[in-house]
Amino acid sequence: MCRWLAYSGTPVLLETILYRPEHSLIDQSLHSKMGVETTNGDGFGVGWYGPGTDTPAVVREIGPAWSNRNLREIAGHVRSPLFFAHIRASTGTAVQQTNSHPFRHGRWMWMHNGAITDFHLIRRDLALAVDPELFPDIEGSTDSETMFFLALTLGLEEDPPGAVARMAGLVERTGHSHGVEFPLQMTIAVTDGERLWAFRYSSQGTSRSLFYSTQVETLRSLHPDMEFLREVSDETRLIVSEPLGDLPGAWNRVPESTYGVVQPGVDEIVHFAPQAA
Amino acid sequence: MCRWLAYSGTPVLLETILYRPEHSLIDQSLHSKMGVETTNGDGFGVGWYGPGTDTPAVVREIGPAWSNRNLREIAGHVRSPLFFAHIRASTGTAVQQTNSHPFRHGRWMWMHNGAITDFHLIRRDLALAVDPELFPDIEGSTDSETMFFLALTLGLEEDPPGAVARMAGLVERTGHSHGVEFPLQMTIAVTDGERLWAFRYSSQGTSRSLFYSTQVETLRSLHPDMEFLREVSDETRLIVSEPLGDLPGAWNRVPESTYGVVQPGVDEIVHFAPQAA
Amino acid sequence: MCRWLAYSGTPVLLETILYRPEHSLIDQSLHSKMGVETTNGDGFGVGWYGPGTDTPAVVREIGPAWSNRNLREIAGHVRSPLFFAHIRASTGTAVQQTNSHPFRHGRWMWMHNGAITDFHLIRRDLALAVDPELFPDIEGSTDSETMFFLALTLGLEEDPPGAVARMAGLVERTGHSHGVEFPLQMTIAVTDGERLWAFRYSSQGTSRSLFYSTQVETLRSLHPDMEFLREVSDETRLIVSEPLGDLPGAWNRVPESTYGVVQPGVDEIVHFAPQAA
Amino acid sequence: MCRWLAYSGTPVLLETILYRPEHSLIDQSLHSKMGVETTNGDGFGVGWYGPGTDTPAVVREIGPAWSNRNLREIAGHVRSPLFFAHIRASTGTAVQQTNSHPFRHGRWMWMHNGAITDFHLIRRDLALAVDPELFPDIEGSTDSETMFFLALTLGLEEDPPGAVARMAGLVERTGHSHGVEFPLQMTIAVTDGERLWAFRYSSQGTSRSLFYSTQVETLRSLHPDMEFLREVSDETRLIVSEPLGDLPGAWNRVPESTYGVVQPGVDEIVHFAPQAA
Repeated sequence: MCRWLAYSGTPVLLETILYRPEHSLIDQSLHSKMGVETTNGDGFGVGWYGPGTDTPAVVREIGPAWSNRNLREIAGHVRSPLFFAHIRASTGTAVQQTNSHPFRHGRWMWMHNGAITDFHLIRRDLALAVDPELFPDIEGSTDSETMFFLALTLGLEEDPPGAVARMAGLVERTGHSHGVEFPLQMTIAVTDGERLWAFRYSSQGTSRSLFYSTQVETLRSLHPDMEFLREVSDETRLIVSEPLGDLPGAWNRVPESTYGVVQPGVDEIVHFAPQAA
Repeated sequence: MCRWLAYSGTPVLLETILYRPEHSLIDQSLHSKMGVETTNGDGFGVGWYGPGTDTPAVVREIGPAWSNRNLREIAGHVRSPLFFAHIRASTGTAVQQTNSHPFRHGRWMWMHNGAITDFHLIRRDLALAVDPELFPDIEGSTDSETMFFLALTLGLEEDPPGAVARMAGLVERTGHSHGVEFPLQMTIAVTDGERLWAFRYSSQGTSRSLFYSTQVETLRSLHPDMEFLREVSDETRLIVSEPLGDLPGAWNRVPESTYGVVQPGVDEIVHFAPQAA
Repeated sequence: MCRWLAYSGTPVLLETILYRPEHSLIDQSLHSKMGVETTNGDGFGVGWYGPGTDTPAVVREIGPAWSNRNLREIAGHVRSPLFFAHIRASTGTAVQQTNSHPFRHGRWMWMHNGAITDFHLIRRDLALAVDPELFPDIEGSTDSETMFFLALTLGLEEDPPGAVARMAGLVERTGHSHGVEFPLQMTIAVTDGERLWAFRYSSQGTSRSLFYSTQVETLRSLHPDMEFLREVSDETRLIVSEPLGDLPGAWNRVPESTYGVVQPGVDEIVHFAPQAA
Repeated sequence: MCRWLAYSGTPVLLETILYRPEHSLIDQSLHSKMGVETTNGDGFGVGWYGPGTDTPAVVREIGPAWSNRNLREIAGHVRSPLFFAHIRASTGTAVQQTNSHPFRHGRWMWMHNGAITDFHLIRRDLALAVDPELFPDIEGSTDSETMFFLALTLGLEEDPPGAVARMAGLVERTGHSHGVEFPLQMTIAVTDGERLWAFRYSSQGTSRSLFYSTQVETLRSLHPDMEFLREVSDETRLIVSEPLGDLPGAWNRVPESTYGVVQPGVDEIVHFAPQAA
């Protein structure tokens, strides 16, 4: 299990979000409150979009985030309007760079918290379902990366919610056919650099925690003296595995079996259900 | 703060002690119960004596012990009658191999849990007190390594308890002269490959926890069905930062301001007090 | 491309073979003379059999061997009658522990120098040919690991030369069907802890270099004053990507399209040709 | 011994300089032509100034630059008007992050190629000469970092050329007093984020190679069709351990015993000689 964070809005130094909050993602790497594991020290990653290229930069490492000096350097000097950060708690899979999130394909980024139950039983069947053109690009051994490649295979670049629904459907069918009762547990963030989708779903209906931040406009009226809120645009939004602090009114639980879209204009929360591929 | 373990006795596979106990040192790296920090993921080390050489092998790494496959491989294939293991929780000092314990000099090994208070204030004074012949061998930046080099300077190889007492005295005097009220907090293990000394002391009299295992003979009568106890000699002894499990009668607290000696014949526990150098 | 070394014979400290020779494997990691690349700094591994277990210890890392202190420690303290060592020069595949050699399955070890040409084109087809029971154990992304899993699938544990021949046949057929003219380039070492097989083959007939050491008895008469030769048994044998020094008469080229067996009794060199699976 | 590169001028993506040239620093990490060692694989670092902060970001690692994916990501997404890059070939000192260059103090960066001869003999004397206020910030064990701290002690922030001259004088005097004939070998780059100084000096008068790029204006007239030259300002300048390619007229040897200043207005090359402190 893992913890993640997705930011979209006014360009900020990454450290503003990654290090400064009281219960920041870095703090969660040592002391997660809502995770299955309190420690998330088996690798981390950060991916950001910057000016002059559509493709995000993705920096991934194998040690804990809390002691990594390079992450601190990058976070203190890179500014971005849209970035992902992820801290990993391995459930046995190798701790290696290619198993750290986020994963990237072209201008798309993907990160995941959760697991495919008994992944070893169905890893091969799922791998076979990956588009043969994409298959050779699989570099790691996680369920999360396989899910990304399945979503890409099933149309992620054209229809993200549909592709994720078809991926989830495929995982569930494949799991069921191997006798796995509840095959899927996931919170997922995916982006193309412009819009950001976040999914919360599990076969059993007991999904890992996921929260989104309240509209900045509303937060400003609740907390008129918070400087940070005056500096960011109305469209700034955070989606996180667990709240970054205790600010009253700031955090809202993403409902079970839904996904949200952060986009220019009005954000949305929509029902999510796995689909046939 | 850190956790450590010292074993002396019948040669065993390292994993017997490092991995198999319910609350093993590896478990403590994720879930320490008595440490200042619950997570000890900032490097680790293991040092062992084997046949055919006086000098111990010392393997040190920078990541967490819990996910390190090479440690598991070594522990599953190396057998030793005397070994140290240490897991580190940095309090800010760089996470690097030369800051991981145990430290070695010739056939001597040293490891430490605790801290010199406000070490940055007195680091230079302590460094100057190191024998100029030894000074160039300092490779890291920890208080623990400096303490080892001071003890070597002050006669560790001839009189370990005296040298550690003089080192502690020097640290306290230097700290006091810089206005530090309680300069020293330490549990230390040191060995020459034959005898093993363990120290528990702090300026404030609130030292980090330290335990030694009950005599095997006594344990056998308490737990006649424990296979492991039948396989090891009467002289087998463990000293640990915290107990490796809940076996009734197995663990005894090392008293404040004492040191113990594990050696052929009768082990000893003796009062410890810092001395003038 | 890579360099490797396999030792079988009188138990020795690993460093005797890994570090002491003039042109040792460690020296080859910086200055290979016969390799496609002069530098082999993209990870390394060592695997050894010891007393008390059938399964070898396998320690693998991601940095260069030449600067790795832990390898030096292990090599200076571990003694083994049968061990493999490998230094890697990646041709683009991720530098990660699971891509370092040797690979292990139960008591079997495998290491490889060479490449499957255009591996990305046929990686999926080869992966599908792996026994579904074994598939989930694939952890890395190299051609070398896939070759090992194919050989296991095709009977390695019962008939090593036959399984390797069938693996080579499968790789060649699959490559040809994708328009690859010369699909395979390999020198391979494989062992079950008792016998050791070494293969030299390439589709084009221009295989990477491979050498075996002259019989100890013969070497002794050539070099009566070499201490090392007096200490090892007549059955001691080394197989290496390139000679460890210039000792006259010591090294013999393994012929193209052959494999050798190091075993109790008489060693053999036999013609090798890929087979239908 | 090492290789380094310093860039000052029109903001560019780091990869433009670090990866794209034919004989880039990354290529030099595997195949240095003019270095004492052909391989520089014992760590690397990059430090850059960006908008919104005086302090440079410094990312340092312990493995080879050539295979490091994070360096490639950063170089492909970070743009800077002034940056340093360094690849290290250790001469025995530990391969650890705190021994990688560049070193930073406030807004100053420092990197070095060369060595203090018999550093272990005089390391303590030099350490004692470091300002006691600065001493606790020494984190590594290299001669290069000690030289930086000595220069800071001797006035680097007020008078860089004078401070480096006094540092060199101190190193030479200390070396001579320990019987070292030629104590110093150095090429050094230092910057405060606005100006950039580069020094070439050795006690023996046989300094490591150092080159500066020809004025852009001149280069443009020599190579009117080179796109890169049309995109950068007249004041753009590179200083490098060895040329990044074979462009005729592009590279000029920094003379023995001189230093250069890259600054707004006219750059300078001035005679350099060690001074009394």
